[in-house]
Amino acid sequence: MFQERIIRIVGIDPGLRRTGWGVVETLGNSLRFVASGTVTSDNKLDLASRLRQLHDGLAQVIHAHQPHEAAVEQTFVNKDATATLKLGQARGVAMLVPALAGLPVAEYAPNAVKKAVIGVGHGDKKQIHMMVKVLLPKASFDTDDAADAIAIAICHTHHRQSAQARAAFAAL
Amino acid sequence: MFQERIIRIVGIDPGLRRTGWGVVETLGNSLRFVASGTVTSDNKLDLASRLRQLHDGLAQVIHAHQPHEAAVEQTFVNKDATATLKLGQARGVAMLVPALAGLPVAEYAPNAVKKAVIGVGHGDKKQIHMMVKVLLPKASFDTDDAADAIAIAICHTHHRQSAQARAAFAAL
Repeated sequence: MFQERIIRIVGIDPGLRRTGWGVVETLGNSLRFVASGTVTSDNKLDLASRLRQLHDGLAQVIHAHQPHEAAVEQTFVNKDATATLKLGQARGVAMLVPALAGLPVAEYAPNAVKKAVIGVGHGDKKQIHMMVKVLLPKASFDTDDAADAIAIAICHTHHRQSAQARAAFAAL
Repeated sequence: MFQERIIRIVGIDPGLRRTGWGVVETLGNSLRFVASGTVTSDNKLDLASRLRQLHDGLAQVIHAHQPHEAAVEQTFVNKDATATLKLGQARGVAMLVPALAGLPVAEYAPNAVKKAVIGVGHGDKKQIHMMVKVLLPKASFDTDDAADAIAIAICHTHHRQSAQARAAFAAL
């Protein structure tokens, strides 16, 4: 049997204007809400300064909450290349910051996040938010991005647990 | 008249697999090659670890060469969204690192770089490399990306100089 210990996870929903974050704790099958919020960048500043704002905000979150692992949403690649590039730049920073803090960083596609939270691979933002409140009644979030970030963290607790259970079973 | 002083510039050509960098110095109209190289990331590692390798390599370059300003190529947005996203992530890190070191970070489109180095807004890599060698006979580069990074730094010396001359003229 594998040893159970409290694992603290930060989920991140990256975006240049708004990056949502949510911290949850898991022990075995139980889940606890810790904190969530949104890091914003000032769109009057140049790109490098905005990326620095995202870096500084996320670094502060990691310093304050000391998560063990990070999970970042895999950006949806849409048809607008300029938007994809912008999102890519924000996402690069969102993945870098936990990596610089020595955290393993997992990535999840939006439909994997939906499947973990709603039970199916499709559904709208409203359904995700409702299920986040069902799974974590104490959860609070200031933006849609923060709610999505909590959902990403929940998704990671599911996946890391089944990976661990498989490893423990294989070791029997 | 504006005061002339030696300005050291780092040019960066971002890419997830290979990020080129080139450092030049300018004093008035004269230009001097300082150093160039390529930061690579290991494609067997996960994305967050690769972004960290780019971060660490560029941070080392800035620490070693202490540039005053940075210039980064504006990524070409092509039709392949997955490639654009990858490039965006590397570019986010390439812009963040000098910003974290307190450097102003300028951006230049590929045709602005070509215009500054070749004299026209179009031309192939070979022409750029030839002109880099003409403008900076002592320049050496290990990859195409490093040569492009030197060209980006040269482009920035032109643009910052004309901006400064205009400011000095306006102040007369």
